[in-house]
Amino acid sequence: MFFHRQELQFKATPEKPDAVYARKLQEVLGGQYGEITVAMQYMFQGWNMHIPGKYRDLVYGIGAEEFGHVEMLAIMIAQLLEKAPVGITEDAVQDDPTVAAVVGGMDVQHAIVAGAGARPVDSNGNPWQGTYITGSGNLLADFTANANAEMQGRVQVARLYHMTDDPGVRDMLSFLLARDTMHQNQWLRAIEELKEDGLEQLPAPSNFPQRKEHTEVSYQYLNFSDGEHAGDGGWAKGPSVDGNGEFSYHDGPTTSAPMPPPTHPDARMYGTTEVPNVVEKAAGTIQDRLHRE
Amino acid sequence: MFFHRQELQFKATPEKPDAVYARKLQEVLGGQYGEITVAMQYMFQGWNMHIPGKYRDLVYGIGAEEFGHVEMLAIMIAQLLEKAPVGITEDAVQDDPTVAAVVGGMDVQHAIVAGAGARPVDSNGNPWQGTYITGSGNLLADFTANANAEMQGRVQVARLYHMTDDPGVRDMLSFLLARDTMHQNQWLRAIEELKEDGLEQLPAPSNFPQRKEHTEVSYQYLNFSDGEHAGDGGWAKGPSVDGNGEFSYHDGPTTSAPMPPPTHPDARMYGTTEVPNVVEKAAGTIQDRLHRE
Amino acid sequence: MFFHRQELQFKATPEKPDAVYARKLQEVLGGQYGEITVAMQYMFQGWNMHIPGKYRDLVYGIGAEEFGHVEMLAIMIAQLLEKAPVGITEDAVQDDPTVAAVVGGMDVQHAIVAGAGARPVDSNGNPWQGTYITGSGNLLADFTANANAEMQGRVQVARLYHMTDDPGVRDMLSFLLARDTMHQNQWLRAIEELKEDGLEQLPAPSNFPQRKEHTEVSYQYLNFSDGEHAGDGGWAKGPSVDGNGEFSYHDGPTTSAPMPPPTHPDARMYGTTEVPNVVEKAAGTIQDRLHRE
Amino acid sequence: MFFHRQELQFKATPEKPDAVYARKLQEVLGGQYGEITVAMQYMFQGWNMHIPGKYRDLVYGIGAEEFGHVEMLAIMIAQLLEKAPVGITEDAVQDDPTVAAVVGGMDVQHAIVAGAGARPVDSNGNPWQGTYITGSGNLLADFTANANAEMQGRVQVARLYHMTDDPGVRDMLSFLLARDTMHQNQWLRAIEELKEDGLEQLPAPSNFPQRKEHTEVSYQYLNFSDGEHAGDGGWAKGPSVDGNGEFSYHDGPTTSAPMPPPTHPDARMYGTTEVPNVVEKAAGTIQDRLHRE
Amino acid sequence: MFFHRQELQFKATPEKPDAVYARKLQEVLGGQYGEITVAMQYMFQGWNMHIPGKYRDLVYGIGAEEFGHVEMLAIMIAQLLEKAPVGITEDAVQDDPTVAAVVGGMDVQHAIVAGAGARPVDSNGNPWQGTYITGSGNLLADFTANANAEMQGRVQVARLYHMTDDPGVRDMLSFLLARDTMHQNQWLRAIEELKEDGLEQLPAPSNFPQRKEHTEVSYQYLNFSDGEHAGDGGWAKGPSVDGNGEFSYHDGPTTSAPMPPPTHPDARMYGTTEVPNVVEKAAGTIQDRLHRE
Amino acid sequence: MFFHRQELQFKATPEKPDAVYARKLQEVLGGQYGEITVAMQYMFQGWNMHIPGKYRDLVYGIGAEEFGHVEMLAIMIAQLLEKAPVGITEDAVQDDPTVAAVVGGMDVQHAIVAGAGARPVDSNGNPWQGTYITGSGNLLADFTANANAEMQGRVQVARLYHMTDDPGVRDMLSFLLARDTMHQNQWLRAIEELKEDGLEQLPAPSNFPQRKEHTEVSYQYLNFSDGEHAGDGGWAKGPSVDGNGEFSYHDGPTTSAPMPPPTHPDARMYGTTEVPNVVEKAAGTIQDRLHRE
Repeated sequence: MFFHRQELQFKATPEKPDAVYARKLQEVLGGQYGEITVAMQYMFQGWNMHIPGKYRDLVYGIGAEEFGHVEMLAIMIAQLLEKAPVGITEDAVQDDPTVAAVVGGMDVQHAIVAGAGARPVDSNGNPWQGTYITGSGNLLADFTANANAEMQGRVQVARLYHMTDDPGVRDMLSFLLARDTMHQNQWLRAIEELKEDGLEQLPAPSNFPQRKEHTEVSYQYLNFSDGEHAGDGGWAKGPSVDGNGEFSYHDGPTTSAPMPPPTHPDARMYGTTEVPNVVEKAAGTIQDRLHRE
Repeated sequence: MFFHRQELQFKATPEKPDAVYARKLQEVLGGQYGEITVAMQYMFQGWNMHIPGKYRDLVYGIGAEEFGHVEMLAIMIAQLLEKAPVGITEDAVQDDPTVAAVVGGMDVQHAIVAGAGARPVDSNGNPWQGTYITGSGNLLADFTANANAEMQGRVQVARLYHMTDDPGVRDMLSFLLARDTMHQNQWLRAIEELKEDGLEQLPAPSNFPQRKEHTEVSYQYLNFSDGEHAGDGGWAKGPSVDGNGEFSYHDGPTTSAPMPPPTHPDARMYGTTEVPNVVEKAAGTIQDRLHRE
Repeated sequence: MFFHRQELQFKATPEKPDAVYARKLQEVLGGQYGEITVAMQYMFQGWNMHIPGKYRDLVYGIGAEEFGHVEMLAIMIAQLLEKAPVGITEDAVQDDPTVAAVVGGMDVQHAIVAGAGARPVDSNGNPWQGTYITGSGNLLADFTANANAEMQGRVQVARLYHMTDDPGVRDMLSFLLARDTMHQNQWLRAIEELKEDGLEQLPAPSNFPQRKEHTEVSYQYLNFSDGEHAGDGGWAKGPSVDGNGEFSYHDGPTTSAPMPPPTHPDARMYGTTEVPNVVEKAAGTIQDRLHRE
Repeated sequence: MFFHRQELQFKATPEKPDAVYARKLQEVLGGQYGEITVAMQYMFQGWNMHIPGKYRDLVYGIGAEEFGHVEMLAIMIAQLLEKAPVGITEDAVQDDPTVAAVVGGMDVQHAIVAGAGARPVDSNGNPWQGTYITGSGNLLADFTANANAEMQGRVQVARLYHMTDDPGVRDMLSFLLARDTMHQNQWLRAIEELKEDGLEQLPAPSNFPQRKEHTEVSYQYLNFSDGEHAGDGGWAKGPSVDGNGEFSYHDGPTTSAPMPPPTHPDARMYGTTEVPNVVEKAAGTIQDRLHRE
Repeated sequence: MFFHRQELQFKATPEKPDAVYARKLQEVLGGQYGEITVAMQYMFQGWNMHIPGKYRDLVYGIGAEEFGHVEMLAIMIAQLLEKAPVGITEDAVQDDPTVAAVVGGMDVQHAIVAGAGARPVDSNGNPWQGTYITGSGNLLADFTANANAEMQGRVQVARLYHMTDDPGVRDMLSFLLARDTMHQNQWLRAIEELKEDGLEQLPAPSNFPQRKEHTEVSYQYLNFSDGEHAGDGGWAKGPSVDGNGEFSYHDGPTTSAPMPPPTHPDARMYGTTEVPNVVEKAAGTIQDRLHRE
Repeated sequence: MFFHRQELQFKATPEKPDAVYARKLQEVLGGQYGEITVAMQYMFQGWNMHIPGKYRDLVYGIGAEEFGHVEMLAIMIAQLLEKAPVGITEDAVQDDPTVAAVVGGMDVQHAIVAGAGARPVDSNGNPWQGTYITGSGNLLADFTANANAEMQGRVQVARLYHMTDDPGVRDMLSFLLARDTMHQNQWLRAIEELKEDGLEQLPAPSNFPQRKEHTEVSYQYLNFSDGEHAGDGGWAKGPSVDGNGEFSYHDGPTTSAPMPPPTHPDARMYGTTEVPNVVEKAAGTIQDRLHRE
């Protein structure tokens, strides 16, 4: 169950309206790596988790915080739009480049659809969607997904920080940046702990027996491009990170197989078939079938 | 530039047709973490990269390999569909549960749209889409995204391994599992190397100055749920992973702010406003404006 | 069957080109609550309806009108784009803010994709999609959806009215506003008539026996937030609108249940499982199974 | 801010596994009218609302409850999948129609992607998306959208009730049905109260001056189909619901305008133009321009 | 304007219910090449066309017919679903493979969402979307798109013909097949006529001056694969179809350019940059900037 | 298998940055008819093809080239963005209309998400998706789809040519235009050759026996609009293009059927049913059933 308190976790008040910036801020609200994504991702991981205790408490504890961040951003966006000239003709002084930029740069659905309100979309107006989230039930994989989400998120907020001068907006972003710092650290620590607790090892999933994979290619770097430095990295020599093998470098594939012959499905799929006489025979077959039908 | 060779990296031939399994295999061809995703992700990371040398050579070298994996899966799927009873009435012997399962479980678009061929969709028929890929230009974040993609991918292939008995299919999956093992190791090694090379540090992005974030909350675990074990993990005490702080545990938020008052955008947004007399006044204003227009 | 007549229901000719406004007008053509939505929604409701007579005649009669509104908007948009500087370099006088606004604010696909023509998309370029429509076969629910669609539509057109000075555009919008007024009234009247005719009652669906629901919570307002005025409304006291109960107010839930323990699906799902020794046992089981395979 | 409590609002435990039903239940979790939709819709309406007090408290109070319903359904789905034969070959006894139905009827991503867990998608696997929600800032329109959402939702749950025999599932559905009853009543009451409070009237938006619409067609039922009973309803005669007019019935349109002539945008749009000599002239113009370029 | 007549263009009544087939039929109703696509495509081409007369009359004349085909299919689907066991538990006799196939193979949203009605989706439940249509304003290109749409459509209907035994369904499909035959012929004839009328020539768009393209590669077949028969076709030798050149065959590219060096955008994009000392300098610059801010 | 070479097929270097143009160029990279579409379309056609030899070699040979064009465009876009003022506040000189246009006209995700890099999206930021491609296995239909794709593509590139003055960009576009010319010619030639080789004839699919369609309407032009020139074209008189019939012209339909009566699905679908007493009886039935349950 969720309980809502009519307070924000941090002050979210801009100093002045800015409809173009409101649009940009939508990215970290409703984009691929926005707050809706992390809130939903952590909660679904919790609901589907197969372990009670600290790991499930962790995802629940932070998932609920992230819903509060969705709220902070929505409230901020509504205020950025509050006094902005969001599409009203008479306010669009035609020889003012600033207004021209607003006319061009704002999300027009902010005005037409939401009446100067926030929406669950990204900075290009693409609606948030369920495929943004990741939850496989394998915690090593999922916590890596979470670490990535917090990194991408902090990169985006850092960029947004420089796209505004508004001290109120920057203040809120400074808070979100700090929380992203925490959350990156936290997921990376949880990954270490999964290993220490003996729950997961590399490669994920570790309980699939490696002897069932073609281990001869499990640690080969195969260079399918012609970059001459691809073999210079630690991924092309030395011990593998999972401790189970030794990296080696190869120019291109070390295995190959002939391409199988083209398929010939049922003639009633009406695909183009091989040579005329085959077609005739197939047609004969169809003819026969159709007469029977 | 890309050059195509009419050979496969590994044998991709099933022993017998299986339309239901063909559908399942679509997940690792055209799903969120399928081969199209990693092929496109690595290539776009290369095209947008800001460093020449080993890291760009790395993404190019593996990206091209992944396009070959797309091909292996597409070829395999076409063969699984080749002799399957893909929707032809007269073949659907009605008292055979196996056929009933095929009728129910196959991807009907395999027959109707592709004429017994593979498609760039996932196992539920959702089309592959560009938002599946990640590429921020920040390599620490992006390589973490790559590691996650290879982990999720290997988890899915491992599951698919147990959903078939076909030795031909399992043989190909064993190869893909091995390559996923390599690629997990490779990205994790590349992440270490970025740090060793002095290019990136935690938290990402490391060149955003941390003093600009609200550092008082940068290492606090805030528990917004009531799980009593959330504080038991290494994320709630001890040094942080980035080495810049000390984790601490807190029940709920350590900061708060009152929710800002509701916004009052231009009356011509036709939102419902506060109290009747305000409405009247606003209406008056509109009336005035409209008379002027 | 549909028959097309090469006339419009109302004049749809702008006085001057305006590519930015053409983009905005796309919202009511191809947006969530645009004319394509209502046209398709009413027609599908008709095709799926389980009653002959006045209600089916009603949805058919208005659905066909709405396709004509799609046409009016498409024709209008093509004309707004006709002489507009839709992306041609040499016309983009660089020191003219008006042109700058056009460059920034127009839908670039209007030029690149449609060659100065309308498209079935919303004002942010998101394609119209089938999930915008509603049709359950329950007319009380569906006519409420229709009333909502006409309300949202009229709100959007009212906003668009103030975003242009063009008398030709405003003239057409005045017509659409009037039709939206009619259609709001019409659906609300049809809802009343469904009840008068004894076909439907509240709550929808009325023929599901209410005794099968947990009636003890059927009229409780449960406040999951801390707003102190939530209990002031008529939804928290007095008789319910459906006449079957009495509203009451409660701070938070009146029921609760412990969260069920985490699930433990088949080990070959490769989820992270509970405690090490369980893992070992599960691994043993897998080992056994795999040996048998 | 949101706070999570590790309890459910109501018991959500099935008696036995049922992977096919788990898929169906996804509709009311992540479908167009599922619990994610109403949770997000009410919260966004609150964040964008322009009035403090009872109406905002109302949407916050119920929005948070709906997030708890998302949780109940996710937990239920995970349990329905827990012991189900979710795609593991050896369990698929080929001569058992029940298993055949599971193989065909389950959501294969439940197994391959989520490892026997719930996902934010509908019963066909389409991801939840931001366009499912409605929030215009006009409360009369938005509360009508809310009433519709609760009606559609209750219709769907009522259908799902009959698609299972499981007493545990039915018990939870009985609870959700009761809450949908409450929420339908609540939004319809709130609509009445908006009018009583003098905040909104019909047609929405009521503060757009009706004299600016073409009132001559504001109350005409125009029959664009040939159904002979379309004029029998109360929408074709008698006073209008908003009290501002009198309905009338008309066969087809009462207005018309000639279709404007085709547009002739810039020749560099490369559209096909009217007659050859025009083309030549246009080509001449292009030629000239191109020589100048 | 569109006028609806409550008659169908052809009989659309199945002999018996078939929920699985109803799902398949959705492909040609709401799929990529279904009837909604062609109806919308032709109408938008008409609304955006730059020529009056026979070509615009043509697209209007057929577009309206296609909306009638949408109706025929929707009506047919509703009837196929009418008496089908669409998800009701007690009807699902568990030891009957036919019912098992229905349980697995039907579109569950047909029951849960539409109450046994048609929906604007394809056979996998993906909603119809605006990007399915094509309309560039260049009639040579667009009529080729139309010819393709009618070919893909007829291929799909031909496949569907063999997936049912129902004489009523087959009768309707026979009608649709005949109309697709007409429409293929019609668009191919219209393409010829565009050339005869001197309106368009190959390559499209013909009024872009070919001398502005790099004509040295305008007729070269460049083989980027290693298939040895690629040069055997008429596309690798002899006169080109447009009459403006001579085909030639080449193994791989005839041109090449070095890959440009990596980009170095503003340091505040936080991308990973080249070498440590550059990073330091960039960091210095940021430092400077930030101090100034 | 694919092999990558770190060279471009043609020079792709702009003379100066232009973020607005970078956005426009996304259309031919990641749009409906962009290079990702043709690359994927040709490859999937190859993987699913039922004929070895020249046709499969053809699609493989050109498909790989198109992946190289994706690369050229991505590299070009990254460079156009390199020095552009992509959203950094202090660079946005507020009284410069050029900057205002950039602020308004660029794709903000280029900066926020990709850090000044290309993305797999169109010019409005819609992600590329799998439904853009066509591959039915019927080569006559598919090569027509390919011809269309190359025509739409060349029309778009021609438009983009005039939207920039940059000689570097225009140089690359001149190359792409030439290749589109080749590819249009090539597919049209391949279509001729399919017929000459006796593999396919009109109408597609030619091996479906035409006697099974309702041939009486196979060559009728039915005018469902009131355009008086629809009968003037060659599609309304004279021999049909496939040589199998004679075109004829008709005002409206030549066939019709009464609309079937409304359906009455199971009462537990909770649709609104016909007349009260029927409802009662149905309710009775439900009542009975429910009592039994």
